[in-house]
Amino acid sequence: MPQLPPVDVFDYIVFGATGDLTMRKLLPALYYRYRDGQIPDQSRIIGTARSSLSRADYQERAEKALTEFVKPADLDDATVRRFLDLLHYVSLNGAEANSTWPALKDLLEQAPKDRIRVYYLATAPGLYGQICENLSTQGLVTEQSRVVLEKPIGTDLQSADAINDHVGRHFPENHIFRIDHYLGKETVQNLIALRFANPVFERLWSSDAIDYVQITAAETVGVESRGPYYDKSGALRDMIQNHLLQVLCLVAMDPPGSLEADSLRNEKLKVLRALRPIAPDDVAAFTVRGQYARGRSGDNTLPSYLEDLGEDATSSTETYVAIRAEIHSWRWGNVPFYLRSGKRLAEKCSEIVIQFKAAPWSIFPGTPRANRLVIRIQPDEGVTLSVSTKDPTPTDSLTLRQADINIAFEKAFGTRYPDAYERLLLDVVRGDPILFIRRDEVEAAWRWVDPILRGWAENKAPLQTYPAGSWGPEAARALLAEDGHAWHEDMT
Amino acid sequence: MPQLPPVDVFDYIVFGATGDLTMRKLLPALYYRYRDGQIPDQSRIIGTARSSLSRADYQERAEKALTEFVKPADLDDATVRRFLDLLHYVSLNGAEANSTWPALKDLLEQAPKDRIRVYYLATAPGLYGQICENLSTQGLVTEQSRVVLEKPIGTDLQSADAINDHVGRHFPENHIFRIDHYLGKETVQNLIALRFANPVFERLWSSDAIDYVQITAAETVGVESRGPYYDKSGALRDMIQNHLLQVLCLVAMDPPGSLEADSLRNEKLKVLRALRPIAPDDVAAFTVRGQYARGRSGDNTLPSYLEDLGEDATSSTETYVAIRAEIHSWRWGNVPFYLRSGKRLAEKCSEIVIQFKAAPWSIFPGTPRANRLVIRIQPDEGVTLSVSTKDPTPTDSLTLRQADINIAFEKAFGTRYPDAYERLLLDVVRGDPILFIRRDEVEAAWRWVDPILRGWAENKAPLQTYPAGSWGPEAARALLAEDGHAWHEDMT
Repeated sequence: MPQLPPVDVFDYIVFGATGDLTMRKLLPALYYRYRDGQIPDQSRIIGTARSSLSRADYQERAEKALTEFVKPADLDDATVRRFLDLLHYVSLNGAEANSTWPALKDLLEQAPKDRIRVYYLATAPGLYGQICENLSTQGLVTEQSRVVLEKPIGTDLQSADAINDHVGRHFPENHIFRIDHYLGKETVQNLIALRFANPVFERLWSSDAIDYVQITAAETVGVESRGPYYDKSGALRDMIQNHLLQVLCLVAMDPPGSLEADSLRNEKLKVLRALRPIAPDDVAAFTVRGQYARGRSGDNTLPSYLEDLGEDATSSTETYVAIRAEIHSWRWGNVPFYLRSGKRLAEKCSEIVIQFKAAPWSIFPGTPRANRLVIRIQPDEGVTLSVSTKDPTPTDSLTLRQADINIAFEKAFGTRYPDAYERLLLDVVRGDPILFIRRDEVEAAWRWVDPILRGWAENKAPLQTYPAGSWGPEAARALLAEDGHAWHEDMT
Repeated sequence: MPQLPPVDVFDYIVFGATGDLTMRKLLPALYYRYRDGQIPDQSRIIGTARSSLSRADYQERAEKALTEFVKPADLDDATVRRFLDLLHYVSLNGAEANSTWPALKDLLEQAPKDRIRVYYLATAPGLYGQICENLSTQGLVTEQSRVVLEKPIGTDLQSADAINDHVGRHFPENHIFRIDHYLGKETVQNLIALRFANPVFERLWSSDAIDYVQITAAETVGVESRGPYYDKSGALRDMIQNHLLQVLCLVAMDPPGSLEADSLRNEKLKVLRALRPIAPDDVAAFTVRGQYARGRSGDNTLPSYLEDLGEDATSSTETYVAIRAEIHSWRWGNVPFYLRSGKRLAEKCSEIVIQFKAAPWSIFPGTPRANRLVIRIQPDEGVTLSVSTKDPTPTDSLTLRQADINIAFEKAFGTRYPDAYERLLLDVVRGDPILFIRRDEVEAAWRWVDPILRGWAENKAPLQTYPAGSWGPEAARALLAEDGHAWHEDMT
């Protein structure tokens, strides 16, 4: 296990500390960083939730979570013990002004005043404003305090603005860390390195050489127990508005002047603002929305979305969305960016496909296949460049054969790939917002998404169905076919 | 074993049939192609040499050569037997007008008149003209006859012209196949595929993106028994004038209009003619010549070149040469092409290094290393692209790490890589000259090489020494250091 330079001592206060995100992601991520020496022993992780638990109860739950969500080989009894010692618990309803705030206050004030405090809101977004107001009222917002907001920030521009306004009354913008865990993923960060440290890629990175781009986040799972939440959200709000648009920004942005957070975020904002608006009347031409119907996976029958929701459910929520996005800029004129995300698809895979233009002229028998760069975000993070090479089979002419120049990073470097949250949780402690979303980015994203939602609400694009376990509605294939393009799985 | 479409029935007449090249290369190559089904059983391989041998004697020698130079796993008794049945032998001094030509004539005339005949001259180049003249006088040059000339064609422009003139009086240019086995190598042919079937490479293929190019052919062996021959030639004539200049042509040429032989050769010729002349007075500035001195390899002492030549030998022949070549064209302005070849170097390796320009600006801590494409011709044919990627080690900034995107073709395709001669020998039968050197190419190459030889003869560049087993003279390092560049093994 590598020993890394420790960050400053901190208190991490998690609201929603008994929830799924905390157990699956936050605690395991903090454990790894503790094990790797980045978290000083005087630091505290203070869980708060409404449940009435003792500190020992909470430590027990945390231990169970580590056993479940950390690889057994990475668990070391003594280290787990010492990590659990960092944990505290305060039973508290953060949204209630009159809840047991004094208990939290007492605990916090045992530490020096200038200790870094991170308030991590792993709660329903509707509570963000109220929690921040309560923190403020209780005098808990020190100069060294930061707040972390999980997505989704709101359900449209108006509600996002309301949340951002409310939070912004109690925390300055540079202390607000809007997390999008996609930005913590290695391959997504690697996009910045690949593009701006490698002229061989950046020189090709425009409409001169690129035909079109695909960004896919496909899941095989259905909504499962998240049905009631998901049904109010849908794929566009749940995946596109945040994760996929952020990835699109990193693929499409111009070179930032530096790796200062605002330098990078200004470039991302430029991309978001350059997205061609899709008016409600345009949704049929530029978007496909779908909902999974009953399907098959091998011998198993997969239930439909409505069946997943429960008996007699009705819903027009999309579990699949595909969008033909355009970026109105010199670099990307005439290069469609196809975004799609869905549940119950054929494969779990998040990836970026950069489809290069074909050779303008072929001297070979048959036309060489156009080059393609596939950047896999998950699973199997890595990059593959497809090239045409000479077929070594002895024949009488120079015939071509496809070869994939492949690099699986994890294998290449022989190092464990950290989970996205590890990096991001510590970035907050360090006060580095580079991988977090600035308010104006959230707004620009909603401003682009809102008219699409409106068009769908007005039923200007039909809700398609697709069999669970397939690659989505036929209409999504047609969306690309119109341009003479194809989704990755259909490419030859 | 793959079964490939057979070529037409042919007679292959080899002059110098008992020599090293025939035994090591020609017979094994023909065996492989016979085994793979490309050579019809009625074809004949007729060895000629001065030795008085019976057909059975020659078949016995051939069998021994196959046992030695073909992988045991590829030898199959029945196939070897049938292959040896193709062999004939005529004891003949090809350079003598009054030799036993009638015996060869009788043998050839047992076949239909329109059978393809290939006269392969694996003899001293000084005999090429006379052999062709004798063939012609004997009426053996039919319309279906071709002649194959091994390098070197002459020792300078004048002697090359004399040979080409003499041969040209008896064979039309399009029936003269000047072989350069480098062009038969898979990775060299692959250059054409990589460049012209992959816009991602060809778009980068100019001074816009490329800083400099290196072409290396390094051997670990000394001159060994070839001393007396080699001492009259030297590295410039033996390697640069033909192999390395041909590789340079394929790296540097503009896209040909088609894969017609002359279309390709016209482009190569353009490159050769665009080489900046190196006048005798320039040799000190643009070339380094060296000769190996005594050195070490591990615990062994390696003899010097003079020791290899024999007792009391003196010689100023170069066993190493490095040249800074320039190509005067729009595409390659300000891009030096460094060529080098030598014996008794540290490693056996033929490769092309395309060094790309560094990023014009770095937003990362530290400057990213410039990209590099290494095309390995032998051994381990393949292509490696060096890129900078994000270091996955969890740190507090986006730091870079080098990764090699690597493809070893043989492994990737799981197929045997044919020896260069296999392809070339059958190309002659098919009458496809695309991988052979046209007369004007030979002349253009000598025209560039001659003034260098003259400058050296006038001692305008000192003969350096280098320890056997090293990477050559210090002066070769200095040649690149002046431009701020470095040879591959010195690159960081």
